[in-house]
Amino acid sequence: MNLVPIRSTIAHIWRTAGGLAVLAITIAILGTIARADPLPSWREGPVKNAIVDFVGRVTRVGHADFVPQAERIATFDNDGTLWSEQPIPVQAFFLIDRVKTLAAKNEALRDRQPFKALLEGDLKALHDMGSKGIAELFFSTHAGMTVEAFDELARDWMRTAKHPETGRNFSKMTYQPQLELLEYLRANGFKTYIVSGGGVEFMRAFSEELYGIPREQVIGSSLKLRFVIRDNRAVLVKVAEAESVDDREAKPEHIGQFIGRRPIFAFGNSDGDFEMLQYVLAGSGLRLALLLHHDDANREVAYDRDFKISPLSKALDKAEKCGIKLVSMQRDWKTVFHPSVD
Amino acid sequence: MNLVPIRSTIAHIWRTAGGLAVLAITIAILGTIARADPLPSWREGPVKNAIVDFVGRVTRVGHADFVPQAERIATFDNDGTLWSEQPIPVQAFFLIDRVKTLAAKNEALRDRQPFKALLEGDLKALHDMGSKGIAELFFSTHAGMTVEAFDELARDWMRTAKHPETGRNFSKMTYQPQLELLEYLRANGFKTYIVSGGGVEFMRAFSEELYGIPREQVIGSSLKLRFVIRDNRAVLVKVAEAESVDDREAKPEHIGQFIGRRPIFAFGNSDGDFEMLQYVLAGSGLRLALLLHHDDANREVAYDRDFKISPLSKALDKAEKCGIKLVSMQRDWKTVFHPSVD
Repeated sequence: MNLVPIRSTIAHIWRTAGGLAVLAITIAILGTIARADPLPSWREGPVKNAIVDFVGRVTRVGHADFVPQAERIATFDNDGTLWSEQPIPVQAFFLIDRVKTLAAKNEALRDRQPFKALLEGDLKALHDMGSKGIAELFFSTHAGMTVEAFDELARDWMRTAKHPETGRNFSKMTYQPQLELLEYLRANGFKTYIVSGGGVEFMRAFSEELYGIPREQVIGSSLKLRFVIRDNRAVLVKVAEAESVDDREAKPEHIGQFIGRRPIFAFGNSDGDFEMLQYVLAGSGLRLALLLHHDDANREVAYDRDFKISPLSKALDKAEKCGIKLVSMQRDWKTVFHPSVD
Repeated sequence: MNLVPIRSTIAHIWRTAGGLAVLAITIAILGTIARADPLPSWREGPVKNAIVDFVGRVTRVGHADFVPQAERIATFDNDGTLWSEQPIPVQAFFLIDRVKTLAAKNEALRDRQPFKALLEGDLKALHDMGSKGIAELFFSTHAGMTVEAFDELARDWMRTAKHPETGRNFSKMTYQPQLELLEYLRANGFKTYIVSGGGVEFMRAFSEELYGIPREQVIGSSLKLRFVIRDNRAVLVKVAEAESVDDREAKPEHIGQFIGRRPIFAFGNSDGDFEMLQYVLAGSGLRLALLLHHDDANREVAYDRDFKISPLSKALDKAEKCGIKLVSMQRDWKTVFHPSVD
């Protein structure tokens, strides 16, 4: 058989396809690499199996559990689920640093409550002031500026601030298994969201860089935004008034408002996430709801019921009955933080 | 020059690349087709040029006006911008039909205000009841059910309801040039959003099918959602309390809350869109804000200042000074509705 004409034809097609074929080959190679274990920081076991089985089923065209790509919504809590929240959530460190900065510029603040109590670490006084004191701390540090100015403040802080106990930059306090899970879900057509009690604009300042989650896929607690013309320019200003607190029932309610779909996957770590997990599981079809249990004192912190800021108690008791899968940090995670950190 | 070894190598690569190269060629061909006029229903002229020039600049890597894909956010009003809002917005027809259905089941409603006034077409009585009467009509027809049940209601209605004057199904009341524009923007890496005074759950029932806009990219007016356990199942119920009215200043405020980015492109048609257009134009870098002027009595309806539900007056006066481009339906659109309809 004379292959020359065929080869010539192929060569012609090849020239036409040009660099696109090279791209196609590259995609094929990358595809093979991607088929290697997508969750190397997860230990083999029932939880990892449940995740891989779930993703396999909902993505297999023709399978009874198949879910169209548009409906593959996954929601993650942030503090204690995607990164450490101990001894206090990262945003609390930001708030403290902001108060210090403001007090350095305005000495009168040092003698005024609730600033005085915060600066002196007087937890009893802070506690006695209750939610009004906390709200004032938030308003004074998070409001009165445009969303763009706040974004810059939060980014600048994230670049340099360090966790007081570990000495690490906060961007290194993210959980490696979760970064892999987010990526794995996205590679399988999921849209990944943060649904967290944290401040929405605070989280948006790092969600893309740290988690690959775009700003518009972050739902959180918020102050009201006000449209104003300032210096002849239309801006949005964060004002000293709460818009919403994204916790407990409010999590599924915000999912309804913002996303308008019932997620098929959710991951939390505290009682504040329980209703979100319930909501996800109550949908028809295959669902997966996971709850991280911080039971690893050696590699992180072991805590649940006694953590005042965000306890894990009711959800822990009800998990099994509700079909929520418990993830044990000790048993299920091979590494906790990035290998360069662990 | 002996080409045989080269051809042999090419043939080898070709076998390796296999069907993927065919895919690459297909993509190349489709790319060429896509380079045909992407806006065939737009007449050549300054507006079409401005759109094509804008998209070309923000997508050209290395160009001074280049905008990374993640920041290519485009927001569209719905009623009067993407589909007809005459003589009343589509959702008002839905509300009227819902009241009729409810009154058929519950005769007592026929003698109760504001239902009586609505059923009898007594506009004066409706007007005299003011916003309280309108709110009650919305609550009684849009609340008290789960978001899923409402979604089904709205979908069922859309499938069969017809515009009383044109006799067309409402899905045929969309503007063909806008469907092309949405598709053109998305093909160039834009994320397209609806930001409208319409009810968010009402619009989500058809946004994907009619506009290719996923539910989570729809922002609108809303009732509060409440998380409840009903029949042992976690659901979200629409309750008889307003959450937000997505109009005027609230449009950019909601953009800040939901998207967290300043769009680079916006399209409206009334004073209710003015602040959104202002907000878009006040960002740094290249922006495009368009305002549709309904000046085509032959093919649609000519109206602006006197349309009580949603007038175009202030925005019309200020457009030029603010850098907002006016789109004349008569001058700039070759077709208005789908060719099969026009």
